[in-house]
Amino acid sequence: MAESIIKNVNILTMNADKDIIEKGVVVLKDNLIHDMGNEDLLSKYPSDNIIDGKNGILIPGMINTHTHASMVVFRSLGDDVPDRLKRYIFPLEKKLVNKELVYLGAKYGIIEMLLGGVTTFTDMYFFEDEVARAAKELGVRGVLGETIINFSSPDSEEPYGGLDYCEWFIEKWKDDNLIIPAVAPHAPYTNDKHHLQLANKLSEKYDVPLMMHVAEMGYEYDQCLEEYDMTPVQYLDSIGILSERFISAHSILVSDKDIDILEKRKVGISHNVGANSKGAKGVAPITKMYQKGMKLGLGTDGPMSGNTLDIVTQMSLVGKIHKLHNKDRSLFPASEILEMATIGGARVLNMDNEIGSIEIGKKADLVLFETDSINMQPLYDYYSVLVYSSNPSNVDTVIVDGKILVKNKKLVESNIMDKVKEQLKMIKNNILEVSKEL
Amino acid sequence: MAESIIKNVNILTMNADKDIIEKGVVVLKDNLIHDMGNEDLLSKYPSDNIIDGKNGILIPGMINTHTHASMVVFRSLGDDVPDRLKRYIFPLEKKLVNKELVYLGAKYGIIEMLLGGVTTFTDMYFFEDEVARAAKELGVRGVLGETIINFSSPDSEEPYGGLDYCEWFIEKWKDDNLIIPAVAPHAPYTNDKHHLQLANKLSEKYDVPLMMHVAEMGYEYDQCLEEYDMTPVQYLDSIGILSERFISAHSILVSDKDIDILEKRKVGISHNVGANSKGAKGVAPITKMYQKGMKLGLGTDGPMSGNTLDIVTQMSLVGKIHKLHNKDRSLFPASEILEMATIGGARVLNMDNEIGSIEIGKKADLVLFETDSINMQPLYDYYSVLVYSSNPSNVDTVIVDGKILVKNKKLVESNIMDKVKEQLKMIKNNILEVSKEL
Repeated sequence: MAESIIKNVNILTMNADKDIIEKGVVVLKDNLIHDMGNEDLLSKYPSDNIIDGKNGILIPGMINTHTHASMVVFRSLGDDVPDRLKRYIFPLEKKLVNKELVYLGAKYGIIEMLLGGVTTFTDMYFFEDEVARAAKELGVRGVLGETIINFSSPDSEEPYGGLDYCEWFIEKWKDDNLIIPAVAPHAPYTNDKHHLQLANKLSEKYDVPLMMHVAEMGYEYDQCLEEYDMTPVQYLDSIGILSERFISAHSILVSDKDIDILEKRKVGISHNVGANSKGAKGVAPITKMYQKGMKLGLGTDGPMSGNTLDIVTQMSLVGKIHKLHNKDRSLFPASEILEMATIGGARVLNMDNEIGSIEIGKKADLVLFETDSINMQPLYDYYSVLVYSSNPSNVDTVIVDGKILVKNKKLVESNIMDKVKEQLKMIKNNILEVSKEL
Repeated sequence: MAESIIKNVNILTMNADKDIIEKGVVVLKDNLIHDMGNEDLLSKYPSDNIIDGKNGILIPGMINTHTHASMVVFRSLGDDVPDRLKRYIFPLEKKLVNKELVYLGAKYGIIEMLLGGVTTFTDMYFFEDEVARAAKELGVRGVLGETIINFSSPDSEEPYGGLDYCEWFIEKWKDDNLIIPAVAPHAPYTNDKHHLQLANKLSEKYDVPLMMHVAEMGYEYDQCLEEYDMTPVQYLDSIGILSERFISAHSILVSDKDIDILEKRKVGISHNVGANSKGAKGVAPITKMYQKGMKLGLGTDGPMSGNTLDIVTQMSLVGKIHKLHNKDRSLFPASEILEMATIGGARVLNMDNEIGSIEIGKKADLVLFETDSINMQPLYDYYSVLVYSSNPSNVDTVIVDGKILVKNKKLVESNIMDKVKEQLKMIKNNILEVSKEL
């Protein structure tokens, strides 16, 4: 395959030195970044296949380190219900979630992520094979974990049935080039010690990620203290399941000692600032985590919790909420926030050798922001414009694994988009009726 | 003039009962809302002048109750500088701000506001006559206050020269149908008692708003306590300048006693959640203010502080930051947040008899959100979709005073937009050079 070229872009490489190349050029070959540099490269690679970036900003594809994409079909339902997970969401899922809904929701959610510049997403849900199918069809990169939980769930009559499903799921996808299957015990309070350890063994056996909601809920924390006299993090460490394969979502109620444990075990942290704040759950101590150089990325949580699936929206919130919480306006300059959104997320997934920065030899996962919209000017500071002024509608072009999936702000395969929207319309009324009974 | 009709919209009226009309129709005549209701109205008003809202969401025009629009020319400069106002912004303004820059910046900023659904904005700056000129040319509604400050400023060699400018400015614009001139002493710490009282007298003489940054900065608060043994609010009350004409921007460092004073004096509160958080200034106690039924609206602050000029972006932040701060996920349901963005803002400006809700007899200031974009579905709860999923790019049509200013997401007078962008490009390099010397 001949090279394709992206020219006339301001490249935020997000490499170790955070190099910026203005009027830059990136050369793609197959699914990789083959070369990059300034405009001189154009003469070295004569190609007809040129994307003119029109002075836009080119960044590494953004990484969503925690979501439940399929739940987008429920978005905007019961937004202000107290104790919402147990009283509203679990019963709603019990009544409505099936294979078809998971597949449709995943397709919808993935399209929304792609249009917003997410090129790799991390998902936890039921029927995760359907999420994988949707991701594969759309061409996005996915780290996908089947849920394991101590009660009868949409895809398993038996409690903990997710374990068997998960092994089957891993076997099916383990050699795929875009999909990384994973093991996803829901939380410390919805799994017993024995099954958490089985989940960890499964993750170890196949060397795939183990992901979980950790230290997210007040009642989770209280229950852990009461039953084990330990915090959730200390409990998970005591049963031996924290490792560099572990992705800890939320991680809000963690002490300094907990942070030391998470650091020592090389756990990856998914910070879900939008959902954490909308759900009044607290402020995760990411300042300390960042200073320690821990693996730290951003996530949206499910769209019933955070209501958006893109990472652009999260970035501005990270700055605002942590500056406010720490009473320090100079904390987390915008470049550090874009770091979390890209290479930081790649570190969380142990994929930073492959994705997360624009460097020769890495996978061609790229996002181009146009700078022509009124909110994108003036352009004195690229990072600041992205983090504090942009929104997902400024994403112009998205490339995953060398393939252009979004162009001129539209999904290239627009027929998929239309079909999915139509299908969602057809099931909406049924969902609304069921939700009213709760 | 014959009627024009908007049909096929879901109307969030924001009237006292927060009535919603699905498949609604609004009839405009001249600059007013002439009639409204369901589709039956279509036969009563046969008109060729019909806008098909395509199942979008129609809301009252949003109201930005505090900004410095012209500062958009500096946006993204020095975002993380500590003690930024005194060390960076004032010197930058001293070197660069002149009539032409204020006019150009105002035009740019107003276009950005219009495209984001703001139909009335409240501004404080220098050369405010230039802001009025820009607003008038673009057709937006503006409450515009000339800055009064105790040092030599861009539009006045003499300290407090703004007072004379302001009276001239008021005389010039006081009978305009779109522009309301106002008096804007910068803050308690940049004006002495005598000049604050003169500013108040001017406001009283012409019955125009008096607007000020109040209880925004830690050093302001400390200085007030030290000099007067009073909080900023108590001090302003003690010198007799708080009244229903007063618009108090920020109002972060206010005690319960201060809130009682602000309530008693019928002061309007402009809540600037984005700038307050990005600047690490604190959380304004708006929960108490809202519960007391005080006049409470949203503002963006200047685009060097908040980086966006639309109110859509503020709404989601209001929910997230106050739910988090109060540890209560059910606080401020989305409908109350849209209330602050519309009729609440109108109350702050004492204009709630004219604007802020969709009711017969009110001014035709209207904003149509399309619901076709992927982030706008599913549509179970209109308020929730607007507050938590939408962004300014979903604003499709904007009408101010009966005139369509934005259509299909574009400024109707697109040549103005192109010209302003071009002019901004021409001065950018000079601004960047000057900023580097600071």
